[in-house]
Amino acid sequence: MGSLDANCIASPRGFSPLDIDDFRQQAHQTVEFICEYYKGIESHPVVPQVEPGYLRRLLPETPSAQPMPFAKVLSEVQATVLPGMTHWTNPNFFAYFPATLSSAALCGDLLASALNPVAFNWLSSPAVTELESLTLDWLAQLIRLPKGFLFSAGGGGVLQATTSEAVLCTLVAARKMVLERAGHDGADKLVVYASDQTHSTFAKACKIAGIAPANIRIIPTAREDLFSLRPDSLRAAMEADAAAGLLPAYVCATVGTTSSTAVDPVAQLAEVAGRFGAWVHVDAAYAGSACVCPEFRHHLDGPHKWLLTGLDCCCLWVRDRARLTTSLSTDPEYLKNRATESGLVVDYKDWQIGTGRRFRALKLFMVMRCYGTANLQSHIRSDVRMARGFEEMVAADTRFEVVVPRRFALVCFRMRPRRAGADGEAEADAANRRLLEEVNNSGGIYATHTVIGGIYVIRFAVGTTLTEERHVKAAWELFRAKADAAWEAAQ
Amino acid sequence: MGSLDANCIASPRGFSPLDIDDFRQQAHQTVEFICEYYKGIESHPVVPQVEPGYLRRLLPETPSAQPMPFAKVLSEVQATVLPGMTHWTNPNFFAYFPATLSSAALCGDLLASALNPVAFNWLSSPAVTELESLTLDWLAQLIRLPKGFLFSAGGGGVLQATTSEAVLCTLVAARKMVLERAGHDGADKLVVYASDQTHSTFAKACKIAGIAPANIRIIPTAREDLFSLRPDSLRAAMEADAAAGLLPAYVCATVGTTSSTAVDPVAQLAEVAGRFGAWVHVDAAYAGSACVCPEFRHHLDGPHKWLLTGLDCCCLWVRDRARLTTSLSTDPEYLKNRATESGLVVDYKDWQIGTGRRFRALKLFMVMRCYGTANLQSHIRSDVRMARGFEEMVAADTRFEVVVPRRFALVCFRMRPRRAGADGEAEADAANRRLLEEVNNSGGIYATHTVIGGIYVIRFAVGTTLTEERHVKAAWELFRAKADAAWEAAQ
Repeated sequence: MGSLDANCIASPRGFSPLDIDDFRQQAHQTVEFICEYYKGIESHPVVPQVEPGYLRRLLPETPSAQPMPFAKVLSEVQATVLPGMTHWTNPNFFAYFPATLSSAALCGDLLASALNPVAFNWLSSPAVTELESLTLDWLAQLIRLPKGFLFSAGGGGVLQATTSEAVLCTLVAARKMVLERAGHDGADKLVVYASDQTHSTFAKACKIAGIAPANIRIIPTAREDLFSLRPDSLRAAMEADAAAGLLPAYVCATVGTTSSTAVDPVAQLAEVAGRFGAWVHVDAAYAGSACVCPEFRHHLDGPHKWLLTGLDCCCLWVRDRARLTTSLSTDPEYLKNRATESGLVVDYKDWQIGTGRRFRALKLFMVMRCYGTANLQSHIRSDVRMARGFEEMVAADTRFEVVVPRRFALVCFRMRPRRAGADGEAEADAANRRLLEEVNNSGGIYATHTVIGGIYVIRFAVGTTLTEERHVKAAWELFRAKADAAWEAAQ
Repeated sequence: MGSLDANCIASPRGFSPLDIDDFRQQAHQTVEFICEYYKGIESHPVVPQVEPGYLRRLLPETPSAQPMPFAKVLSEVQATVLPGMTHWTNPNFFAYFPATLSSAALCGDLLASALNPVAFNWLSSPAVTELESLTLDWLAQLIRLPKGFLFSAGGGGVLQATTSEAVLCTLVAARKMVLERAGHDGADKLVVYASDQTHSTFAKACKIAGIAPANIRIIPTAREDLFSLRPDSLRAAMEADAAAGLLPAYVCATVGTTSSTAVDPVAQLAEVAGRFGAWVHVDAAYAGSACVCPEFRHHLDGPHKWLLTGLDCCCLWVRDRARLTTSLSTDPEYLKNRATESGLVVDYKDWQIGTGRRFRALKLFMVMRCYGTANLQSHIRSDVRMARGFEEMVAADTRFEVVVPRRFALVCFRMRPRRAGADGEAEADAANRRLLEEVNNSGGIYATHTVIGGIYVIRFAVGTTLTEERHVKAAWELFRAKADAAWEAAQ
């Protein structure tokens, strides 16, 4: 065998990209970089003022052959990447649904990256699988899911990267379940159901799974129902489809829709779906986290948006795990092993789209362990309290109105129309659009919009980890201060 | 608005999970924990000696309300999680395809987690999108992809979490492309093609996309072709399908199969597929990385396994990005924005299954910047040189044989049959199975197997970041030392 590459240019002792001393030094530098970033977090505009293509003007067109000292790379990131970031952790970020984060999650994620297990099945890293099963059982207990969703009862939970993946996996399982019952030639007869408030991931999952567009029922909701899906509407749709010889297969209910945090009546929808043997999936990507607090539990019947774990940590629970795994399992020779054959272990590759997977459970474990459930509850309640305060301030200003009553930590509001009728509504839409632009262009805060029941609405979502009452109050002052001028400018 | 929660128990100043001082202290502790882990990395058995369910016996059944000090949580991880890990970074790990890692990737990933952008579209964090586009252009140049795959030419690259996701997304795009040409009612006529050596992710992607099992052509390969897919076999299959009124839609070719790193002749397969208007996807999840070295470039026509970035960094390039995005795009009101409407930006949510996405490009950028392409080449060459050394040692021992000539850093070998014919083959299979078990049970190393051309083969994959010649030599000594006894015990 030859000796180590003599052409190595990184270090006199050879190219050692995992040298412990280098890692220690570089990691500590990175930690200090992050601390500096967080010290100045409020000084960055929340949304960057960059034009499309800005980064290519700052960095070379081609990769360089030579290494660059680590400190210089960090400086380059500071000078080129940070100015183009939308700062999701800035406490003045009130857009979309904010992404939460914590020191425990960051440390857990770093540790998971350092261990770097490719834990596709139990054997490939037993601790990864077992910690995931256990922490999902913990979280299921905390949000008081029915016992059937625990591993001991034949159910179980898995961490997925995104909500879309969770929807897609259950849709595939539902298809198999229904086709097995109906005979395998009915794929084009499968019908799926959701409300017009359901997240776009549902439509995307249907597209990927190959559900015919004609078989996707998007059921309208109404403002008087607070935009929740009515069980009688679902029943009518399913009855019509069944009478037409189609196969009702899948209902996607939502607890906490993206537009307005509307809550579908899960138990009643499940009762309707049950009569037709359809699968019910509940998308609670945002509001599921609130169910760690008993007072929000009645809305449910997952934590990456609101439980401090950072991105890439979407919880999916199923009542009958065999239905999921039989629809997604593969069994190539090179992964065969005795543990799998024993039937005693969970192989998470059969619960997801991918084969390999990150050790996502470690950050969730460290969050739950380091903070305890009492602090997670206090964190949720604090966000909800701040949103309630914002809602009260909106309601107290007669120029504004809360369009949909707040349930969690999202306030949907607008400037009221100044006259009744369609023209008044159109004027109000234009004025609110202008107001949001003015407020966002100030750089001070960032909020986004939706259109719901035909009305243009400003969404004010409280929830970054660093947001305090003072940020919420200042944001409201900004909306108030810009309101009249925005109205005039828009007309 | 109320005051902060008086029931908070974590800290007298309230619950502050992103407190800078806490983070600094905890992150530095985590870094030291990782350094200690790596100092002792070779002292852990590569595969843990734990029974299914071991972790539940060590940790509580329910989550606790109270927080636990950070140092105590780290100790708990040390005592409960580490003993159940399969240590993928142990230099004696030669199983599956090893996962590589580097200090730059770890630091880049930590920084990405700390920034925590949910970069579904350009606006939601311009730098995330632009850095990803740029680094994928860099990598495309480094592996000498045709210019059509660069952004400037209408192509482009995206980082996906897993290979499976990349296969699924392109399959969905191919379906749309072919159905648009053929008329939208032909979904059940679509036919897809791969060899019997293709990774199981292909079959899984077909299952998820709803391709009828009868329309999946798994074309046999043979030992005399080194298990590569023959263009004439593909052509015969496509001609038969076209003649039967079916629609050839998608070919999955592989450069570096999982069983034996077989290389399909991409250019010739593409020529055949082109005649039928089918999409060609090249799975180079493992061997694509080797193409950073010019001497391996002829095999291609991806870096997370072998380019030091850690998991969760699968590169996908397409020649015509509009074909991908039109098949996966969604346009909900709450994500509408002027940048998207301008058509000047990339919205990566339309290149993948999920909506949200991690800032994966940062670790790839930091790896390419910190090490330079010269070191990446030297890293690949060093692994290949060690594998070649192992192959030579196998060939020099008359009891053993190399079953498939080595191309990259995987050696497929076995103890030779002691007599000709089926009985001799069966004896050899049993003996090699026993040998692998004995070697793995020693705890000293970990390798895995496959069955190829009906032969049970031991796969020896060189490639963890810390593996040196001494580990490879010691591993070979272990196989040699156990060989005769394993043969006797198996008969």
